[in-house]
Amino acid sequence: MINKLVEKIKKTHAPIVVGLDPMLNYIPEHIQKKAFEEYGETLEGAAEAIWQFNKGIVDHVCDLIPAVKPQIAMYEQFGIPGLQAFQKTVDYCHEKDLVVIGDVKRGDIGSTSAAYAAGHIGTVKVGSKCYHPFGEDFVTVNPYLGSDGVKPFIDVCREEKKGLFILVKTSNPSSGEFQDKLIDGVPLYELVGEKVAQWGNDCMGESYSYIGAVVGATYPEMGKKLRSIMPKSFILVPGYGAQGGKGADLVHFFNKDGLGAIVNSSRGIIAAYKQEEYAKFGSQNYAEASRAAVTAMAKDIEEALQGAK
Amino acid sequence: MINKLVEKIKKTHAPIVVGLDPMLNYIPEHIQKKAFEEYGETLEGAAEAIWQFNKGIVDHVCDLIPAVKPQIAMYEQFGIPGLQAFQKTVDYCHEKDLVVIGDVKRGDIGSTSAAYAAGHIGTVKVGSKCYHPFGEDFVTVNPYLGSDGVKPFIDVCREEKKGLFILVKTSNPSSGEFQDKLIDGVPLYELVGEKVAQWGNDCMGESYSYIGAVVGATYPEMGKKLRSIMPKSFILVPGYGAQGGKGADLVHFFNKDGLGAIVNSSRGIIAAYKQEEYAKFGSQNYAEASRAAVTAMAKDIEEALQGAK
Repeated sequence: MINKLVEKIKKTHAPIVVGLDPMLNYIPEHIQKKAFEEYGETLEGAAEAIWQFNKGIVDHVCDLIPAVKPQIAMYEQFGIPGLQAFQKTVDYCHEKDLVVIGDVKRGDIGSTSAAYAAGHIGTVKVGSKCYHPFGEDFVTVNPYLGSDGVKPFIDVCREEKKGLFILVKTSNPSSGEFQDKLIDGVPLYELVGEKVAQWGNDCMGESYSYIGAVVGATYPEMGKKLRSIMPKSFILVPGYGAQGGKGADLVHFFNKDGLGAIVNSSRGIIAAYKQEEYAKFGSQNYAEASRAAVTAMAKDIEEALQGAK
Repeated sequence: MINKLVEKIKKTHAPIVVGLDPMLNYIPEHIQKKAFEEYGETLEGAAEAIWQFNKGIVDHVCDLIPAVKPQIAMYEQFGIPGLQAFQKTVDYCHEKDLVVIGDVKRGDIGSTSAAYAAGHIGTVKVGSKCYHPFGEDFVTVNPYLGSDGVKPFIDVCREEKKGLFILVKTSNPSSGEFQDKLIDGVPLYELVGEKVAQWGNDCMGESYSYIGAVVGATYPEMGKKLRSIMPKSFILVPGYGAQGGKGADLVHFFNKDGLGAIVNSSRGIIAAYKQEEYAKFGSQNYAEASRAAVTAMAKDIEEALQGAK
């Protein structure tokens, strides 16, 4: 799957992943109204609004981007109906040939991690039948529990040719509280990065490993160091746009081949119509606003990468 | 909710939580067969088998214990139908007046953590209506992202009188890989423990805080230290039984009031009928075997606590 991701990035010239993290207040009034008329002000109504909103965006940006990253929390908060909207979104993005990164940040031990891996990127057996329940292509994984929490995910990746992005240095302001602590002079996130590189060595695709890392755009200097520690790991970079990261901050996350990173934007794209810059589209044309925001983001990153050459 | 947990522990004399982590191979043949006859060898069939299995156990142990801890991964692996079985299990345990600890190990940043908290222990708003989607009483939380990943959970706890168990030192063999690293001579898990104590100070119930910690039974010496660092935090202790922890290892997790810890056993109870000791019950009477295992576990812990006096 890492090979497909690399190919699609080369084809679209856009190392961009659109974060499908639909808060209800991002969703235009007319979509919410229609969904509530059909299903009432219920969890099912919220789920329908989310699904219709996502579909509009995916239809308008799918030719421009290699991948999407639905944040499962935004669906899970609406219980079972919300998760049904997550499932529909994953399936629909696959129909559109997008790579789907499930931002699930799961992580547990042994058989429990194996169960998460099976449900999201693997296969479960029921009697004599096999199923691929959620069927994402990549998932994000939390490393706090150590190797035996991560290995079951890696095993599934190897069997199914799927991939991981392991949290190394997250984009939030207090990520340093534990991640930056120095251990014999080396910050914890670097130790985690070293492990990611090790784990990744055994799971190589054509040019990059199946095992990638999450490193926030908000920490470009750390990104530079981590890029050198994990030369073969793709870096998923959140924090662009709404969280404050700019194109110029991103160059250190890429390798000299112009690859090696994929930058996420969520709010900045899916709620673009709410920003002054794209307000002219209006809420009826929210998905066209998202398309314009994707084009602008691709240009920003391309120029930054050109400038760095 | 911490007050209810403490009361129920006092009433049952059993600081025990039964881990409802149903692997399909724990579920007796006759239950699987019936579920597959009705729903086929499908995700729905697996979910029905899990639900019927859980119901049998809950019916047979609910008067002996204060709490259950369904591990959501074991449900999530079967996709939407699996999560519906999780929901049914949570609801049924509430009908039986059990405290429900959702072992979800979620953790993200800002609005994303807020969404997980809303979905599992809080309230979501849809138009003018409010819902409590999954409705657990406690959830487990991963601290790797730092305060701004944890605080949204704490905010919801304060509003809803719910609680957390934050991962401090997990029970698995490689938990030390990151958690034991020394930072100025102090292991990371102690720093996390100190944070848990701080966070907990602002969220006190009558005698204990709403904000608890997870510390594995497999590390009793670390448990002793963490007990003193977090005197007002309840400790959820996994790793008893199948993972190797014994009653005698547990005394250090308790305070002098005989409270302050709740010990989880999953496989050791729900798959008791598969152990030599309880094989006489047979798979038809798996739930009676679980009841006998709960009684034995309560006795083991009580004797260990008496012996420590």
